[in-house]
Amino acid sequence: MEATKSAIKVAALCGSLRKASYNGGLVRSAMEICKESIPGMQIEYVEVSPLPMINTDLEEEGGKFPAVVEEFRRKISRADSFLFASPEYNYSIAPPLKNAIDWASRPPNVWADKAAAIVSAGGNFGGGRAQYHLRQTGVYVDLHFINKPELFVYAFQPPAKFDADGNLIDAEVKERLKQVLLSLQKFTLQLRGQC
Amino acid sequence: MEATKSAIKVAALCGSLRKASYNGGLVRSAMEICKESIPGMQIEYVEVSPLPMINTDLEEEGGKFPAVVEEFRRKISRADSFLFASPEYNYSIAPPLKNAIDWASRPPNVWADKAAAIVSAGGNFGGGRAQYHLRQTGVYVDLHFINKPELFVYAFQPPAKFDADGNLIDAEVKERLKQVLLSLQKFTLQLRGQC
Amino acid sequence: MEATKSAIKVAALCGSLRKASYNGGLVRSAMEICKESIPGMQIEYVEVSPLPMINTDLEEEGGKFPAVVEEFRRKISRADSFLFASPEYNYSIAPPLKNAIDWASRPPNVWADKAAAIVSAGGNFGGGRAQYHLRQTGVYVDLHFINKPELFVYAFQPPAKFDADGNLIDAEVKERLKQVLLSLQKFTLQLRGQC
Amino acid sequence: MEATKSAIKVAALCGSLRKASYNGGLVRSAMEICKESIPGMQIEYVEVSPLPMINTDLEEEGGKFPAVVEEFRRKISRADSFLFASPEYNYSIAPPLKNAIDWASRPPNVWADKAAAIVSAGGNFGGGRAQYHLRQTGVYVDLHFINKPELFVYAFQPPAKFDADGNLIDAEVKERLKQVLLSLQKFTLQLRGQC
Repeated sequence: MEATKSAIKVAALCGSLRKASYNGGLVRSAMEICKESIPGMQIEYVEVSPLPMINTDLEEEGGKFPAVVEEFRRKISRADSFLFASPEYNYSIAPPLKNAIDWASRPPNVWADKAAAIVSAGGNFGGGRAQYHLRQTGVYVDLHFINKPELFVYAFQPPAKFDADGNLIDAEVKERLKQVLLSLQKFTLQLRGQC
Repeated sequence: MEATKSAIKVAALCGSLRKASYNGGLVRSAMEICKESIPGMQIEYVEVSPLPMINTDLEEEGGKFPAVVEEFRRKISRADSFLFASPEYNYSIAPPLKNAIDWASRPPNVWADKAAAIVSAGGNFGGGRAQYHLRQTGVYVDLHFINKPELFVYAFQPPAKFDADGNLIDAEVKERLKQVLLSLQKFTLQLRGQC
Repeated sequence: MEATKSAIKVAALCGSLRKASYNGGLVRSAMEICKESIPGMQIEYVEVSPLPMINTDLEEEGGKFPAVVEEFRRKISRADSFLFASPEYNYSIAPPLKNAIDWASRPPNVWADKAAAIVSAGGNFGGGRAQYHLRQTGVYVDLHFINKPELFVYAFQPPAKFDADGNLIDAEVKERLKQVLLSLQKFTLQLRGQC
Repeated sequence: MEATKSAIKVAALCGSLRKASYNGGLVRSAMEICKESIPGMQIEYVEVSPLPMINTDLEEEGGKFPAVVEEFRRKISRADSFLFASPEYNYSIAPPLKNAIDWASRPPNVWADKAAAIVSAGGNFGGGRAQYHLRQTGVYVDLHFINKPELFVYAFQPPAKFDADGNLIDAEVKERLKQVLLSLQKFTLQLRGQC
């Protein structure tokens, strides 16, 4: 009961809108790992696809947002920390993810002072360049990212890491993903003064 | 006549969708400056607002893009070089601009091997952080950015730089904007082997 | 007495070797502010100038470092958190500071899992570009930087911020520097589970 | 004879001071490749090790530099373009390389308006993170970097890329290094209006 009361609520976001996205697969796998083997932590998948392209002209007087934005912001607001599955598009952040971050940063910024972790899958550096841009964004929106471990999944190096639907099938990557989640859990509690 | 024949066609993009955007004002001002005082260079304003959020599932077999994407890519394709008015959102690139870059980078990448310049307006560093992220994206999409002059418009420092509609009204900034355009013109010709 | 027992020890480093360095002035001012008005926190100025240029060939078998490096690493090792006064040289970190960070990162990495803050003074963005590069280095050496407030001192904007010896003379900047120190103190305690 | 007259002079710098540095090996290999198979291009290895740690207090009135700095600046000054072998130290540029760049950037900046290429070898991203920081420095010192191909040598992935003395022994990497040199040659000529 104690564990339930203080369970950390993590909101997970994926920067790709593709159905068979590898980064989406990382989020799904993280949710399974969490459910199966990380007590005290719950992950909710928060979709970024319903959000309109950022345009503050869409905000009404008094800071009222479009309904889908309000709904998204509520989900971010009630989370204790965040897991970003952040693909790299052209050496920087994928627009669907940056767009979601920007909407939730509008006053009042609902990311503020929370812990976060980034994972990514892709060719080349496995999404690495986008992760550092996302970290810079985190300075302004006031996210505290874990430093270690970092997870860059080299999606096209054998053996296959994902199946055709984008599901993570590699045991070693799953274990490393679990270590990211444990580190995020620890850091979230540490920032709360609970460990 | 000679000048007309070889006139450089510049496509200008603005990363903000706001009606009274300062960055939109920079593009409009650049177009006026060009028309009035830069022979041999023409600027076309290319809207990024019609583009859907990037999702390669929207591409059909054989690399066919949605109609608005095809139209956008055609405009990028026929330009000789680019002017990006790039606002900074949360210390990185604005999603509408990154989204446009990502669509036009899909194979065949229509940015490749062309010259480009970035300008920005905003608070704090005047958009500076986003400019360096955009430069990193340029490495992959193979844009050659001018190095100098850089233009960061400190939009909220007195005297007023823009009117309420986002029109640039500051003579000194206009002069600096003109220098950016001249540098872009020179670099475009240089890369073509024409200067 | 309680306060003294648990006083946070901050090691302060300056990236410039110039005698009248503004960044050196920031460190001296931080030390004064701390002594005068921040109970429970002590700042020690750790010189980076004695360090040789990084070259791991200078390490002996068994990880023995040159004497000045050992001495420097001892000082870093016993600090609870760090204040970096980080000038921007050519849009990135000043070599004397990066060199110091690199030496202290050699195994065992003595920066690991500690809190840190960055301040800078300079022209243009006031050292801003170097701060983000330093933050990226922090990911690997496992420093936890405060997000807010950030301090960029626009050294050449009137009124004068520093005197001819590089001493900080501007009351408003001093107040903002104090806020940085208070934020660092709070974050250091938070990471320790003490607040 | 024509080729000799207009031969491009490339200054090559290595950011590591280690005797058996892999990045040093990349420079030596580049020199051999150039001599054997790239007519019209000559590479000179310019040592950065003699340079003192950057400190503008070492400059005398009238912009006179210490003798070793003057000598270094002369070599940079007479080069047409540059090859940087840039190791990654703690996710950013190695101090010996940044230090060299900083000294040669002092007025008059002797890097200005020249072409450059970066190569790197290392673990993880093969030096990738440092390359992007170096590119940002290039904006200010006004270097025009080639975009493609990029070369990141994954030094610790089998098969062995280097021997115990740091000599490049991998045929495929040598071929990719050659492509970097050819791209640098082409871009240097293009910027000169000679191709």
